[in-house]
Amino acid sequence: MPSVAPGGVGRRPSPAGRRSSSAGRRSSSDGRGRGARSAGTRPIIPHATRVLAVSDSPRPVPIVVLVSGSGTLLQALIDASVDPGYGVRISAVGVDRDGTAGQERAERSGIPTFVVRPRDHRDRAAWDEALAAEIARHEPRFVVSAGFMRILGPRALAGPTVINTHPALLPSFPGAHGVRDALAHGVAVTGTTCHVVDAGVDTGPIITQRAVVVEDDDTEESLHERIKVQEREMLVDVVGRMARHGHRIDGRRVRLGG
Amino acid sequence: MPSVAPGGVGRRPSPAGRRSSSAGRRSSSDGRGRGARSAGTRPIIPHATRVLAVSDSPRPVPIVVLVSGSGTLLQALIDASVDPGYGVRISAVGVDRDGTAGQERAERSGIPTFVVRPRDHRDRAAWDEALAAEIARHEPRFVVSAGFMRILGPRALAGPTVINTHPALLPSFPGAHGVRDALAHGVAVTGTTCHVVDAGVDTGPIITQRAVVVEDDDTEESLHERIKVQEREMLVDVVGRMARHGHRIDGRRVRLGG
Repeated sequence: MPSVAPGGVGRRPSPAGRRSSSAGRRSSSDGRGRGARSAGTRPIIPHATRVLAVSDSPRPVPIVVLVSGSGTLLQALIDASVDPGYGVRISAVGVDRDGTAGQERAERSGIPTFVVRPRDHRDRAAWDEALAAEIARHEPRFVVSAGFMRILGPRALAGPTVINTHPALLPSFPGAHGVRDALAHGVAVTGTTCHVVDAGVDTGPIITQRAVVVEDDDTEESLHERIKVQEREMLVDVVGRMARHGHRIDGRRVRLGG
Repeated sequence: MPSVAPGGVGRRPSPAGRRSSSAGRRSSSDGRGRGARSAGTRPIIPHATRVLAVSDSPRPVPIVVLVSGSGTLLQALIDASVDPGYGVRISAVGVDRDGTAGQERAERSGIPTFVVRPRDHRDRAAWDEALAAEIARHEPRFVVSAGFMRILGPRALAGPTVINTHPALLPSFPGAHGVRDALAHGVAVTGTTCHVVDAGVDTGPIITQRAVVVEDDDTEESLHERIKVQEREMLVDVVGRMARHGHRIDGRRVRLGG
């Protein structure tokens, strides 16, 4: 039997070559097209250097992160965003209740926060409307649900793409107990999924997945810990790629850099 | 993102230490217990050598293999069984129709075959009864459904454990189109499952699984080819371990060497 890749298994990263052309496309949408860079005042420089110049000076893409709990996924995104080459600026963190560790993490890092509590609204539709308005106010390119424990409504979903992570290889084991359900079913391989949020519960188009091998003596806790490591790494990778290369949803396919 | 283990990912093999104790347990059930080996006429030999002695001279475990089609999985088992250390003797190959390549492979290797055709029986129950009788006649320790395209009935399932492989990470994508369905759903990771057959369709307790990464340009054919490589390797591994170490089904858990 083969050995297990220490970092788990996932869809392969885009080839390095794609980065330069996608960065070029992104710059175009920022109003600084490929032509502007390669013509005129700039000296002709070797291709590799030109690629570095592009990825070293991206205009960071604004995102909003939604959090309900301790915010460890948020922290991973905050840490990654320190590197300008990552290409992401967290323009706001939204929470659904007061006093979460996630909100504290954001404030410690000087990131604006907003609170949209269901109980402050007359019904779910009004809450959905308020959340959508808060998201829109920060003009994110996309939204990351990083441990946000609420089903989003149609207004929030009508805005920028929302992505989410789930601690199982969807479509297996959707819902609130992905790790426990996988263990109870006796699977030998589970993992984590990053997907676009749609109106269903963990049913949206899959962006990427990583496999995690179940050990004979795993408990829900031990297995979840290993999944969380993969989940964090996967989310940081996906958010960076979506920011730098853009994304395209085509039926059930999500192409990064497409 | 991590690199992909060339051989895919699966449940880790049993630690080497388990092999010796399990071999001891198996020998016990063969009427040649651990005590018989370590006492009396045999000289005291180093532990490592003793383990080798046990695994080098196992009484091969008889199995029956059921095949419907070309028999590539069967061929992998035939090839593996040539090594006496593998511990398996294919005592018969059963097919559900005449003239299959699988039957030819068995005959070329001098393995007895039997044919149980549904149309030779008045109904499904009678066919099930006949298949169960043929299996029982060859006294297998367990039965391998290696591309046998029929649902087994209660009589066949009441006999020795039947195992099967499926080209997806169950419980995702059961049924006849595991590869096509996974692609249509847009998963980034799929794989193959070896499981115990029960009365449902691909619902039985899982023995092991291996993950296979979906590539952006995969077709059903290209993906299935990579899955088949894992499926063959996994099946050969599982059949050998079940033969050498025994197995125990405990709810939805299957322990090898337990």
